[in-house]
Amino acid sequence: MNIDMIEQAAKRLKGHARKTPLLSSPFLDDIAGRRVFVKAECLQHTGSFKFRGAWSAISMLTDNALKTGVIAFSSGNHAQGIALAARLHKTPATIVMPNDAPQLKIDNTCALGAKVVLYDRTNEDRQAIGEKLAAERGLTLIKPFDEPQVIAGQGTCGLEIAEQAAEEGIDTADVLVCCGGGGFTSGIALALEAVAPGLRVRPVEPVNFDDVTRSLVSGQIEHNTQTSGSLCDAIITQQPGDLTFPIMHRLCGPGIIVDERDCLRAMVQAYARLKIVLEPGGAIALAAALYYGDQIEGEAVIVTASGGNVDRSVFQHALETYGDQI
Amino acid sequence: MNIDMIEQAAKRLKGHARKTPLLSSPFLDDIAGRRVFVKAECLQHTGSFKFRGAWSAISMLTDNALKTGVIAFSSGNHAQGIALAARLHKTPATIVMPNDAPQLKIDNTCALGAKVVLYDRTNEDRQAIGEKLAAERGLTLIKPFDEPQVIAGQGTCGLEIAEQAAEEGIDTADVLVCCGGGGFTSGIALALEAVAPGLRVRPVEPVNFDDVTRSLVSGQIEHNTQTSGSLCDAIITQQPGDLTFPIMHRLCGPGIIVDERDCLRAMVQAYARLKIVLEPGGAIALAAALYYGDQIEGEAVIVTASGGNVDRSVFQHALETYGDQI
Repeated sequence: MNIDMIEQAAKRLKGHARKTPLLSSPFLDDIAGRRVFVKAECLQHTGSFKFRGAWSAISMLTDNALKTGVIAFSSGNHAQGIALAARLHKTPATIVMPNDAPQLKIDNTCALGAKVVLYDRTNEDRQAIGEKLAAERGLTLIKPFDEPQVIAGQGTCGLEIAEQAAEEGIDTADVLVCCGGGGFTSGIALALEAVAPGLRVRPVEPVNFDDVTRSLVSGQIEHNTQTSGSLCDAIITQQPGDLTFPIMHRLCGPGIIVDERDCLRAMVQAYARLKIVLEPGGAIALAAALYYGDQIEGEAVIVTASGGNVDRSVFQHALETYGDQI
Repeated sequence: MNIDMIEQAAKRLKGHARKTPLLSSPFLDDIAGRRVFVKAECLQHTGSFKFRGAWSAISMLTDNALKTGVIAFSSGNHAQGIALAARLHKTPATIVMPNDAPQLKIDNTCALGAKVVLYDRTNEDRQAIGEKLAAERGLTLIKPFDEPQVIAGQGTCGLEIAEQAAEEGIDTADVLVCCGGGGFTSGIALALEAVAPGLRVRPVEPVNFDDVTRSLVSGQIEHNTQTSGSLCDAIITQQPGDLTFPIMHRLCGPGIIVDERDCLRAMVQAYARLKIVLEPGGAIALAAALYYGDQIEGEAVIVTASGGNVDRSVFQHALETYGDQI
């Protein structure tokens, strides 16, 4: 993995992925006590940054591989990214999804033309299912994070952050990234190392799912004891990846662990102040900026708002519970 | 009014106003039966395109005028745009707002440092109040739409639409614009006339507040009989402006009149498919694209999503009432 791969991915994504805006609001600055910049990846195609990695990986496939098709396992955002990128490449897609994924993510993945195979997150291993189906049917498996071209695709977001931060006059800041398996985090970190070394990437995770934060402390890959039971479904993984962890270990600062309720509060602030829709896992970095400021350094902070694919009941619950804080 | 004024405004806005993205979703294309592109001005500073005109006008003032301060009358979006642009220019702002404006808009305007004066929309004339206060206190009145530098500022959105449409390969399409007094509509029309003449601007208005549509038919300025009682508070005005109407009459195609309930439906689609928050008046052009397709020509349509400053109760009502259509 290196910056050349990310820059090559950026060329392949040009005209296909969106350059998402870097948003801000004086009201959020007031809450955080510093300037807050929000990279709104919920506005990316399919509602999350995952389209970047999906396009990056599928656009590298041979004609033969495209003809046979691709397979992926995902809680929903990688699923949708793969489904749309596959459709645009005219290649069939099969997606292995947990049966407790948000209904919206399952529905969207089907509507984008992918074949969805559901599994039970508590007693089945999605990686094993995906690898078995791939072997049986000759499909190309595109892993959600531990895959070089996926990491390179996610890293293109880091190139944009560097450019947009420079336009705002910011060359030193913490960059808080919503972190699951580390594909987004490590991709952005690699990009910033090369083009904006004053920007330090820090993973943000929910309470009880802090595998990356603990791994960064211990220096080796640590596991979560749970793999379900979080509102932040988009960023719940068993452990950081074999490819992503060494990159994060080398480049990323201490993790921040956030209470899920603060993700809901941050969703409401993003709705009211930035006019964007976030899912809980996509709001976790903003939550860290707004409510965990004592763990952050500097006069400005940059956060990723990684996805907006939230079930309506969860969004309404957030508005009803925390709407009076607007 | 001419394209040079818009291009000059674009120079003054550079680095201050946001270049908002042109969003799309295959799900919206399916509903509309054609490609739909959404210029997401809800992501502009203060949550609506109005910041463009406000910055354009205030950035033209003399040091003396800035020292005394500015005054504006507005249902809320111009108010917030003026309040923030004034604060950034370090000039005091007084805003005359209707007492039935959404509470969020009143609160935000105050929070941005403006002094708010409320009036009764049913029996007081905001223009007269604004002009009187301006005369008494020596303040510069910045009208919400019938003001050359405001129209020029709103027109900068048209320059961006032209550029972004070209990137999507679109040179012929209807451009549906959420229309109140016509500042946004006429500014965009002037910009497109100069740089993308294949893009035809069409105003979109709510049922019972179709003054511009009727004025375009009759060839003279027509009035609304009501000036309150609409969810689309942002685009309710008594009549088109003396400056804006001749421009619209020369350049804009037939208006489209939309049922308010369809604005709420479009808000829900924008939430689910684009991950943006719209207010009813800001969703009216999208509603026309999605649900009034028989009045639209061409394989693609461009719509403005002009603002997102919606009271939470209205947003929740939309989600509860039309959320099952996602």
